[in-house]
Amino acid sequence: MSRIVMKFGGTSMADLDRIRNVANRVKREVDAGNEVAVVVSAMAGTTNQLVKWCQDLSPLHDPREYDVVVATGEQVTIGLLAIALQTIGVPARSWQGWQVPVRTDHAHGKARVTEVEGETLIARMQAGEVPVVAGFQGVAPDGRVSTLGRGGSDLSAVVLAAAIKADRCDIYTDVDGIYTTDPRIVPRARKLDRISYEEMLELASVGAKVLQTRSVEMAMKARVRVQVLSSFEDKPGSLVVDEDEIMEKPIVSGIAYSRDEAKVTLRRVPDRPGIAATVFGLLAAANVNVDMIVQNLGADGSTDMTFTVGRADLARAQDALDKARPEVGFEAILADPDVAKISVVGIGMRSHAGVATTMFRTLAEKGINIQVISTSEIKVSVLVAADYTELAVRALHTAYGLDGPAA
Amino acid sequence: MSRIVMKFGGTSMADLDRIRNVANRVKREVDAGNEVAVVVSAMAGTTNQLVKWCQDLSPLHDPREYDVVVATGEQVTIGLLAIALQTIGVPARSWQGWQVPVRTDHAHGKARVTEVEGETLIARMQAGEVPVVAGFQGVAPDGRVSTLGRGGSDLSAVVLAAAIKADRCDIYTDVDGIYTTDPRIVPRARKLDRISYEEMLELASVGAKVLQTRSVEMAMKARVRVQVLSSFEDKPGSLVVDEDEIMEKPIVSGIAYSRDEAKVTLRRVPDRPGIAATVFGLLAAANVNVDMIVQNLGADGSTDMTFTVGRADLARAQDALDKARPEVGFEAILADPDVAKISVVGIGMRSHAGVATTMFRTLAEKGINIQVISTSEIKVSVLVAADYTELAVRALHTAYGLDGPAA
Repeated sequence: MSRIVMKFGGTSMADLDRIRNVANRVKREVDAGNEVAVVVSAMAGTTNQLVKWCQDLSPLHDPREYDVVVATGEQVTIGLLAIALQTIGVPARSWQGWQVPVRTDHAHGKARVTEVEGETLIARMQAGEVPVVAGFQGVAPDGRVSTLGRGGSDLSAVVLAAAIKADRCDIYTDVDGIYTTDPRIVPRARKLDRISYEEMLELASVGAKVLQTRSVEMAMKARVRVQVLSSFEDKPGSLVVDEDEIMEKPIVSGIAYSRDEAKVTLRRVPDRPGIAATVFGLLAAANVNVDMIVQNLGADGSTDMTFTVGRADLARAQDALDKARPEVGFEAILADPDVAKISVVGIGMRSHAGVATTMFRTLAEKGINIQVISTSEIKVSVLVAADYTELAVRALHTAYGLDGPAA
Repeated sequence: MSRIVMKFGGTSMADLDRIRNVANRVKREVDAGNEVAVVVSAMAGTTNQLVKWCQDLSPLHDPREYDVVVATGEQVTIGLLAIALQTIGVPARSWQGWQVPVRTDHAHGKARVTEVEGETLIARMQAGEVPVVAGFQGVAPDGRVSTLGRGGSDLSAVVLAAAIKADRCDIYTDVDGIYTTDPRIVPRARKLDRISYEEMLELASVGAKVLQTRSVEMAMKARVRVQVLSSFEDKPGSLVVDEDEIMEKPIVSGIAYSRDEAKVTLRRVPDRPGIAATVFGLLAAANVNVDMIVQNLGADGSTDMTFTVGRADLARAQDALDKARPEVGFEAILADPDVAKISVVGIGMRSHAGVATTMFRTLAEKGINIQVISTSEIKVSVLVAADYTELAVRALHTAYGLDGPAA
């Protein structure tokens, strides 16, 4: 007997047939003797429509009223799924955020969960009832409805799993697990049975958009074991767990890539103390996130400064830098949106040298020029010309021995 | 300065343009110095869709879950209207049923309101904020969402008006008031400035479908002055008030008709004590509502018994009677669905004789045969062949001096 949270996204709840399908999945876990709580998203498309209405009425709408409107999507699906479960003989009851309650702060539209009360739900589960909990929503300290931000249902599932002391939090989605890399680029990509929270965070933030980053952070903090699996196929997925639960630690677990970056170079920046603080301070003020940074000292006491920003932020970054040119005193801004960030990720790197060397040699053999390098404890990332993305990912996947049997 | 509840139905809230229009209406009342609370329905069509989903999943769905699903329609519109009001500079805040709270009993799907807390809303209104309250919904004693049954938003508006001691409850709808009869039949029908609760109840229950019967009963009980007016035109509507507020009491206020009736005659029923109790008891057991009843004693100690039932119930009524034939012992069942009920209604009848005589003479002059007659303190109803409906209504409208100027 296990206690499990099962979370189903909008695609899995898109219409009545799919909701019936979800009910059957839940019934199978119940019939196997497990205690089950379910977390659901709104029907695919619903939340977009609700957001658009608020936006159309006023781009500067009250986020408290926005939350009232957008929280309705999940209220519909919890009721429908509870009915579908009862119809096939599974005792079930819907729970809105304020009923559980899922307490949050006042940051409407992107609220942080402060506390989830699990006792009542645990008692219901022990009595044989399946709680069907609305994802994405909670209740603010003043009793108004709050929401956790787009994709927040994953987070709801994880905090609920922590609150009811679940053995596992199963996230049903439209992919069947976490892969060593994007299977659309590398057909021989392998599904990972287990992956650590830390690796998942690195893979998610560089492009493997399976699990929302905040959910993984929360799962790591609360030590919730998360399984990612397909809502349409019936086979085990990938387990995201504590490093200690992974016996054989692979040196490299996966290759990630992101084309959402742009490279900015400031030519001939005067090399004086505090110049980096000035440049990145004004980018922060313009709400531009900066990722990789390198700086080369030139012979004449000036320096070239290169960094990457989100591609969507490039124009804003250029604008902010241009305005500050008299103050900073650089010669030119060179912007290049045609870049890709390629990362190799693995907890085994901590105890193995030579990972970066393999990466650089592999890319050199394929004639791929490395523009920027950055490293962390479990990741090495390089920036290359966007045209080389697939070639680089495929070459690295093979070089680190990640290829599965031919597809 | 007045305190007003303004209620807008689904047609008035059907899209963003109409919601903006409603916001402007509310602003006008606020600008005129009034304290305003608003009650809204779901966008037209939404509730039907939500009901259909529940129905499609299971005709025998849990009414508690049904309530969770269908209550979302009003949650969307309160949020959107609050945003629309704020956008034009009117401080506003949405209130769901559980937040007010509107307390109800446990009868999910058709709950009765037990208590509405008005103090918080009054304080907000006095501070210059417009509460936007979800119609149709409340909260059951165990903290689950409940709904008041179809058309329940009118009821929400009336109970809210009572709770906040409003001077008036304005029901905005797609007609501009209560008429002396159906203007589609009688172009010279006049809009009534004032009508008593009692008359409104008689007119509503016999076919003038402007205000839900339960709302009128509640308004009468709580002495809430209700105004029915158009959300699309800008002119006063009809006021539904206590009889004491009507100075000049018209003998006849309106002519109503209903084609939803069917006539049933049982031929040669044995005339023994308790036979009526047997017949109508078995119809009640079959959930058939009986309206008008007449009984004629025949010469041979048997009787003909005639009554009307809802047309939709006719087959069920015939079936129930057929099965009981050996027990009751009548000779034949004659059923006639082609009938109409015509009623003249007016509180002035209480003090004036001759109303029924005028009715019978007028119909006789037009060659219309009266099949059944029933009367109450403020109403005389007759059953005639359905073909004569329009002719009868027009003739009576003229006979009682109700005709307005030619349209």
